[in-house]
Amino acid sequence: MKHLIKIMYVGTDFCGYQVQPGKRTVQKVLQDAIEKVYGERFDVKGCSRTDSGVHANAFYATFDVPDKALIPLDRVPPALNSHLDDDISIVKCIGVNDDFHVRHDVLYKEYVYQIQDGPIRDPFYFNRAYFVPSLLDNDSVALMNKAVEAFTGNHNFKSFMSAGSNITDCVRDIKYINVQRQDNLIKLYIAANGFLYNMVRIISGTLLDVARKKIVPEDIADIIKAENRSFAGPTLPACGLYLNKVVFTGVDF
Amino acid sequence: MKHLIKIMYVGTDFCGYQVQPGKRTVQKVLQDAIEKVYGERFDVKGCSRTDSGVHANAFYATFDVPDKALIPLDRVPPALNSHLDDDISIVKCIGVNDDFHVRHDVLYKEYVYQIQDGPIRDPFYFNRAYFVPSLLDNDSVALMNKAVEAFTGNHNFKSFMSAGSNITDCVRDIKYINVQRQDNLIKLYIAANGFLYNMVRIISGTLLDVARKKIVPEDIADIIKAENRSFAGPTLPACGLYLNKVVFTGVDF
Repeated sequence: MKHLIKIMYVGTDFCGYQVQPGKRTVQKVLQDAIEKVYGERFDVKGCSRTDSGVHANAFYATFDVPDKALIPLDRVPPALNSHLDDDISIVKCIGVNDDFHVRHDVLYKEYVYQIQDGPIRDPFYFNRAYFVPSLLDNDSVALMNKAVEAFTGNHNFKSFMSAGSNITDCVRDIKYINVQRQDNLIKLYIAANGFLYNMVRIISGTLLDVARKKIVPEDIADIIKAENRSFAGPTLPACGLYLNKVVFTGVDF
Repeated sequence: MKHLIKIMYVGTDFCGYQVQPGKRTVQKVLQDAIEKVYGERFDVKGCSRTDSGVHANAFYATFDVPDKALIPLDRVPPALNSHLDDDISIVKCIGVNDDFHVRHDVLYKEYVYQIQDGPIRDPFYFNRAYFVPSLLDNDSVALMNKAVEAFTGNHNFKSFMSAGSNITDCVRDIKYINVQRQDNLIKLYIAANGFLYNMVRIISGTLLDVARKKIVPEDIADIIKAENRSFAGPTLPACGLYLNKVVFTGVDF
């Protein structure tokens, strides 16, 4: 039976999701835990290839368990958690149809980028948010929320893709972006049907340029139109980025 | 001029507040940073001797700066922060009278003890809260809030003091205790004019025994009256404990 699991992890001590020789990755520790529980090594497919240092409030993965090895679905999270370190937890496990695909069946994913703004660095957000050593006032947040309008919908987002990707079709559909203050954090929620390499971190860097009045909201349309990375803002660091929500077609989880 | 600083720190990688040979302590890193800023080593007095692993949302300390070495008070936090690691920050600095004493002039201190209740361990609270692998429902929180009544006021809290302290007068005045759910955390706020060794962690452990129905709220008065450590609940781990607020007589900071 195909199992779909929901996972949370602190990305700081992981070299991203995907298995790499000699590195501690999310995929590796999941496969190791599964091998300890089932006595066999199953291949684990993840919903996204998150980078080193990126966190997940909700990451999804699938693996197939042969009928003879099945354990009750509600016992899967505690069984796997007993073989996982303290920076990663399995939250939930359900059974899905064999034809379910954890990447192809994604309707949209939501990331959140967290900025802790100054003047004083909050030590509890070290590695959990990007620190900006000046206060982003209400006007800055309003400017960012004005700038998001140009991003929404179907666009070619080549200007917001880092080099090193071999993707050629750069059109993605951004469902929404919204920027909110929550205590001493600015949270940028970005949802789309798919994301290019570093797309959230570059959009966040460009919105931060808007907040800091380096560019105006009206510049965004031209930056998108340029289809050229050098027109957009900086790639913000991984430590502020969280995969926050994944909505699948046909599976409510 | 005597300087009073407000400090935040993540306690995980500190061996508590007080200087100990060869150990990384809060007092040591503060004195090191001061020496780098002023070119001289000043003695730093802290408001409390927090243990290894205990955190601070608001810790206070004083040090005397000779007139010839003074820098503007608003420049002190950024100057010290530039010589401090990412798990500690100076939030604010003011000048106080020479006769101000950062321990004797405390009216009351408030600690908060954070419990993350189950069934799933939230990896983002690892080392930041004590994990209890079962849900504490609204009734449990109500039971804890009923039990706090017996603690309030002047009592001999010898039952809530760990061995290893040479304190003989165990009478303290608890101003208030209140227990609140905030998302997936249970927060126990405890304020008193002073605290015995491990007092907050033992009171929290005893309240957790109430929540888990090992004892009833009516037992608390007898546990206090016993003046015997063995009658109270367990000492919960340091990782859930935060010094949260300090109110001084005569200084509003």
